[in-house]
Amino acid sequence: MDILIRNATLITQNAKREILKSADIFVSNGKIGKVGKNLKENAEEKIDAKGKIIFPGLVNAHTHIAMTLFRGYGEGMRLQDWLTKRIWPAEARLKPEHAYRGAMLGIAEMVRSGTTAFNEMYVAGMEKIAEAAETGGVRATLAFSMIDDVPGHETEKELREGIGFAGKLKSRSGRVKAGIACHAPYTCTGELIQKGKEAANRMSIPFHIHASETRKEVFDVLKKRGQRPVEYLDKLGVLDRRTVLAHAVYVTKREIGIAGKKGASVAHCPVSNLKLAGGGVCPIGEFARSGANAALGTDGAASNNSLNMLETMKMAALLQKNFYWDPLALSAQQALDFATINGAKALGINAGSIEEGKLADLVIADANAPNMNPRHSDMDNIVYAMNPSNITDVIIDGKFAMRNRKMSFDEKKVVEKACEAALDLVGE
Amino acid sequence: MDILIRNATLITQNAKREILKSADIFVSNGKIGKVGKNLKENAEEKIDAKGKIIFPGLVNAHTHIAMTLFRGYGEGMRLQDWLTKRIWPAEARLKPEHAYRGAMLGIAEMVRSGTTAFNEMYVAGMEKIAEAAETGGVRATLAFSMIDDVPGHETEKELREGIGFAGKLKSRSGRVKAGIACHAPYTCTGELIQKGKEAANRMSIPFHIHASETRKEVFDVLKKRGQRPVEYLDKLGVLDRRTVLAHAVYVTKREIGIAGKKGASVAHCPVSNLKLAGGGVCPIGEFARSGANAALGTDGAASNNSLNMLETMKMAALLQKNFYWDPLALSAQQALDFATINGAKALGINAGSIEEGKLADLVIADANAPNMNPRHSDMDNIVYAMNPSNITDVIIDGKFAMRNRKMSFDEKKVVEKACEAALDLVGE
Repeated sequence: MDILIRNATLITQNAKREILKSADIFVSNGKIGKVGKNLKENAEEKIDAKGKIIFPGLVNAHTHIAMTLFRGYGEGMRLQDWLTKRIWPAEARLKPEHAYRGAMLGIAEMVRSGTTAFNEMYVAGMEKIAEAAETGGVRATLAFSMIDDVPGHETEKELREGIGFAGKLKSRSGRVKAGIACHAPYTCTGELIQKGKEAANRMSIPFHIHASETRKEVFDVLKKRGQRPVEYLDKLGVLDRRTVLAHAVYVTKREIGIAGKKGASVAHCPVSNLKLAGGGVCPIGEFARSGANAALGTDGAASNNSLNMLETMKMAALLQKNFYWDPLALSAQQALDFATINGAKALGINAGSIEEGKLADLVIADANAPNMNPRHSDMDNIVYAMNPSNITDVIIDGKFAMRNRKMSFDEKKVVEKACEAALDLVGE
Repeated sequence: MDILIRNATLITQNAKREILKSADIFVSNGKIGKVGKNLKENAEEKIDAKGKIIFPGLVNAHTHIAMTLFRGYGEGMRLQDWLTKRIWPAEARLKPEHAYRGAMLGIAEMVRSGTTAFNEMYVAGMEKIAEAAETGGVRATLAFSMIDDVPGHETEKELREGIGFAGKLKSRSGRVKAGIACHAPYTCTGELIQKGKEAANRMSIPFHIHASETRKEVFDVLKKRGQRPVEYLDKLGVLDRRTVLAHAVYVTKREIGIAGKKGASVAHCPVSNLKLAGGGVCPIGEFARSGANAALGTDGAASNNSLNMLETMKMAALLQKNFYWDPLALSAQQALDFATINGAKALGINAGSIEEGKLADLVIADANAPNMNPRHSDMDNIVYAMNPSNITDVIIDGKFAMRNRKMSFDEKKVVEKACEAALDLVGE
């Protein structure tokens, strides 16, 4: 289906960061065919987007979407209690069908808040999560989260599962792609991390790993591996443009320099970091200046508790300002860059800007809502004032994932089924 | 008009913090007449609220609503440049009609995000802001912000204006009440602050003042007045249950103790504090434990850039957790308390909980939306996962301020008129 969208304000995110007023977008074959004024292209679907703002779909560079089932489960507990008494027992009961239902719920929430692609790592039900991404109409990079330096897990078995899933993931749509993931430097042996990364290189797919999320982790890794997490990953030779480090809160200037030199991606998850009370703030602005590819993620809804990338953009910008005592520490433009072009780069997808030839992943928002006015700066309004109520339409891969605030699938049923699955998991 | 709302989940915020399922509310004469199961009261308006969550209207305990016109104006500037080159020149052009239009825009945004009452201090157009609150259907406490320890201002003239406005504010509806405000300890003489507070006492209305928002302010006050801001206000004898301190970021344990002992209210504005990059976090949890009345505010949209109290609740809870390295530092229940019962207490209004006899200020939200599920904890979902798209109806003073997502006034016109006013002020 071809779509012609007319008369919108376009936040292009092109190299010049142009904002075009009263401009049109022609979407064809899943891609942006043309951008300009008064386009005359024929399209089956024509949209008058006067009074709307269009920006590239947001990319959630780190999440665990099946965990949407655990939103608000076990609040008011300390991390260790929460994991051992709530999350792990529930996850032990998690079957592929639960993962599917959790993923569908998360997809509904993500699309409603302007996210068009996500970077996933999880321990169960990966095939069903892939099926959910296909059904839900979103773009995704999915990886089984391998782990071997903990009791009950074996390196070879993990590699078989992780690489096996990546190898057999056949996407019907092309939207759903595989990645390789290792859990973290404190839970994975060097062997697993290196073999995982080698497999990712062979398959030309992204490699995804948690790193330096908490203080404790840093000291555990120092003790166990003799180096700090990012230094250690560099020694293993796994840092490059196809590696995504999730969190990276507790890092040294030296580690920031290493990540920058290697051009690794960093997925900053500010809301989750604060909710888990780690005590620090990821120096994402410094990572960006060092040459790393700075991206943003929500983490799972179990520790956020939303999957709202609009909120994450605002939080990221505000935290950098306060952390560095500098209102210019991170601008709205930078936050949007992190969530669009940089996110797309982290996932290795040809998206993140409104330019001819790019994948047609677009968010259409109502610029006439009171919270989006006055329009002194649409850019600042998007990052600091927008909320999901403003988003009217979401296009992914040239198709409507949401049209006039209505999802492409039966949302009511998705919510009901997810609630059943959640109750089943927590044993109620 | 009487309203009978049936079959909702009620977050009552009563003394026991009960959450009632499948319960009803009978609203009569602007008040909550009855709360319970299977109410049989006759009402002109009946609402089936199955699948809805109802909580008390949120109270924004510190804002400058006319400044909604400056949302996103002068971003990317340092505070002093922003004030001297952008905000002050624009404010110098601000006429009462501009204030009216800014206030109407802010009211639309506030109601859509679940706020039913706000605590305002501003320098111009107070009568028109009062008119906007009447027209917009919200509850408000309004004060002219007096200032005398800066060039061009005189103590007597400020007192005439501030006390004069309070004295002549006649609310048609009873919703719109007067307060007395002094700008801050570093910009107001002790004489002004004391005479202002005395007037507030005579009139039995709240007293509202900024205090300890920035590091610089603390040192300026120490130098100028010989004490820290909260200590100084205590010496002046103005701290009591009818005084609201806005911000209170940079305070000592001793000052927290003083505020607690006097039972003063503190309006914590986390989003604005971070956006202005002050570098600290208000110890609102410590204030609460000390006996102070802990409340929340958005501050003006010029430094937030939204008026979204849902966001402010989440930010407040997350910041305390991270600041104290403790996931239990501030719970969702506490954040909601701050924004409801405590906010109502700060404004001296008989609201903030769903109980018989309380003012009927209610927010009705869709509990079936994907981001509000699963329902392991409605309380945590409200504070950590809800956004304005979930709010369907808002009742203030027993009347619909918003019904089925439609405002009680012509919102399109409000937005247009506000945009005209904004452009006029910034000289475009």
